[in-house]
Amino acid sequence: MELAELREPDQPGFTRRLFSEPYHRSRAWVKDQMEAVGLNVRTDPVGNLIGELMGEELGLPQIALGSHTDTVAGGGRFDGMVGVLGAIEVARLIGQLGQPLRHPLLVADFLGEEPNRFGLSCLGSRAVAGQLTSGHLSLQDQDGQTLAAALAATGSHPENLPKGLWPADRLHCYLELHIEQGSRLQAARVSLGVVTAIAGIHRAVITVRGRPDHAGTATMAERRDALAAAAEVVLLVERLAKEVGEGGSGVATVGRLEVSPGSTNVVPGLATAWAEFRSAQVDWLQDRNRALAAGVAELAARRDLNIAVEWVSAEPPVDCAEGVRHLLRETIEELGQPSMELSSGASHDAAHLARLGPMGMIFIPSQDGRSHCPEEWTAPREVALGVAALLAAVLRLDRCDTV
Amino acid sequence: MELAELREPDQPGFTRRLFSEPYHRSRAWVKDQMEAVGLNVRTDPVGNLIGELMGEELGLPQIALGSHTDTVAGGGRFDGMVGVLGAIEVARLIGQLGQPLRHPLLVADFLGEEPNRFGLSCLGSRAVAGQLTSGHLSLQDQDGQTLAAALAATGSHPENLPKGLWPADRLHCYLELHIEQGSRLQAARVSLGVVTAIAGIHRAVITVRGRPDHAGTATMAERRDALAAAAEVVLLVERLAKEVGEGGSGVATVGRLEVSPGSTNVVPGLATAWAEFRSAQVDWLQDRNRALAAGVAELAARRDLNIAVEWVSAEPPVDCAEGVRHLLRETIEELGQPSMELSSGASHDAAHLARLGPMGMIFIPSQDGRSHCPEEWTAPREVALGVAALLAAVLRLDRCDTV
Repeated sequence: MELAELREPDQPGFTRRLFSEPYHRSRAWVKDQMEAVGLNVRTDPVGNLIGELMGEELGLPQIALGSHTDTVAGGGRFDGMVGVLGAIEVARLIGQLGQPLRHPLLVADFLGEEPNRFGLSCLGSRAVAGQLTSGHLSLQDQDGQTLAAALAATGSHPENLPKGLWPADRLHCYLELHIEQGSRLQAARVSLGVVTAIAGIHRAVITVRGRPDHAGTATMAERRDALAAAAEVVLLVERLAKEVGEGGSGVATVGRLEVSPGSTNVVPGLATAWAEFRSAQVDWLQDRNRALAAGVAELAARRDLNIAVEWVSAEPPVDCAEGVRHLLRETIEELGQPSMELSSGASHDAAHLARLGPMGMIFIPSQDGRSHCPEEWTAPREVALGVAALLAAVLRLDRCDTV
Repeated sequence: MELAELREPDQPGFTRRLFSEPYHRSRAWVKDQMEAVGLNVRTDPVGNLIGELMGEELGLPQIALGSHTDTVAGGGRFDGMVGVLGAIEVARLIGQLGQPLRHPLLVADFLGEEPNRFGLSCLGSRAVAGQLTSGHLSLQDQDGQTLAAALAATGSHPENLPKGLWPADRLHCYLELHIEQGSRLQAARVSLGVVTAIAGIHRAVITVRGRPDHAGTATMAERRDALAAAAEVVLLVERLAKEVGEGGSGVATVGRLEVSPGSTNVVPGLATAWAEFRSAQVDWLQDRNRALAAGVAELAARRDLNIAVEWVSAEPPVDCAEGVRHLLRETIEELGQPSMELSSGASHDAAHLARLGPMGMIFIPSQDGRSHCPEEWTAPREVALGVAALLAAVLRLDRCDTV
């Protein structure tokens, strides 16, 4: 609640976006929290805040915990924050136990996980895994500023990023505690979820080119109405996710639609739809991509207009390590709690960390499934259960030599 | 072609919008043309340019001809202009005939027929018919300027307008020559159309209120996707005009659609569609209005979200006077030309003039039905035929005591 007070005053909800003034203040606050529990804190070249507890045995790989503290516009108080503050609490409790870990413990507040004005999410975790490319660094915001320039302005050193900040063989395990952002845990009355995989996201821009006509004089038969065709695209995308498809299940959304010329008295000549498909199963994504192409071709032929589908990104699903899932299930059972396995429809920093070593995630419930809004809520008891599970998992991990 | 050269340099096509600098220049040019053929020219209190030829017999009501010379953004060279310049040519030819008309002849270039930044069309012809209300005069543009202030800035006297500029019993007949803006004359290979009626236009704003959700975590079943529902509204509106309905036929269009929040990764919570229905038959309009309400209610119930339909305007269809239609058919037959009767899907100044007396319209073809675009074209031979029919109709009207 204290962190959530650091917010952009002219934005709704609990807004703290990348590079905003409240975001800078909040990270100074997070750094203080880290230092107060005995973590050695540094800011890495991309701007990740990294707190470290030394391990007792020299040369062992790190156990890393983390998440993010930036928000979407109009966001809430839990998404990302429970992962960072939960990890700091784990470090505090380890200090109180009086028995240092064998492995080094890293607590990361990754830079800018949410989509930002450069159109890129997970800046910090991408950089850690060597996935923040020079192409990404050249992305420009609406004012023409590059991401590289924006990073440099905050004291980061983007010129060194594309190499990757963490070596690939030094990660024992990465764990992230996060809110579910959906309603499956609440529906099952289970407080702790073990994530099986993070959904892949395929995004397409679908451009319908019809013909602008006078809305009073063009007959219905002669029209090539781009919006009417785009409306069929919207319903096709929805149907492709609602129907039982091959290769699993997923969700699909058209979140944005633009119509031109956009006058009441002109038949639209151009419509552009931004669509995305998400699934933890790559087979489903590929099957739905094919089904979209087929549906759009039929529609374009029937309405005698042009429809282009451009796939602009294709993030593959990322599986959580089977060994980590097993360890998390056992840990939660030991705590006397029920658990359930579920996939994540949202993406997370953890998807990038999975490139460096075994990765797992613990979900706690989101009340009524609400997220990315001021109403976002998880009961204090459930946050505490999540932190307890995270601590217990770290202690278990610390006893293993491999996961 | 000379008039079309007076256009806004930073706009596509042949753009000459209300109150633009090229519009002011063009009307000085039109005034010169009027005076060159012997018309006495005045600018009335709303800004209509009125040229008059005296009639031989005192006390007879006027024969009025007219149209407009403003354009939509990106418009063409014929819409409106053939009516004004054709009427001036008729005045010139009457002068050449050497035999003055019995009735006074008025040639009007009506102010601002196209929709403008105040969201109102047919300013000049509304004012003539006493239909430019004080509510209209209070309409504001995006900068907060009222229509009254904009009119006053050009030397008009909007305070006197709501009374109506022309008395209702002084109009013998109003005739307007106009391009069809559709393709029915071309398809029938007929150069001269007699208009039966001007379509009524009913406009609605349809607001769909669903619920914004995370596009990755909200299941398809729990979503209340405002855009998916709006897509069904778009297809419903199209279907209502394509299906054979009760009470005649018409066209329907959703020309504008806005989606909020409009992010690729958020299920839309709000969508607004601007729809219009046009028909020359009021029964069809009323039947389709009812069908829209029923369809939207079913849709809202099925998708468990809220849909509001607000009817924002309802211009009734306007019939052309049967006597004038008869006279025009006979006139065209006498010229040795085929004619066809057709309704107008677009609105015109004539719709307002019909309040003051018998009204008729002559249509000439639009190549490929294109209008409101730079490609708008009517062959010179067909423009000349239109002017010949207008002249012959005026001479016939002048011989009648009633139409």
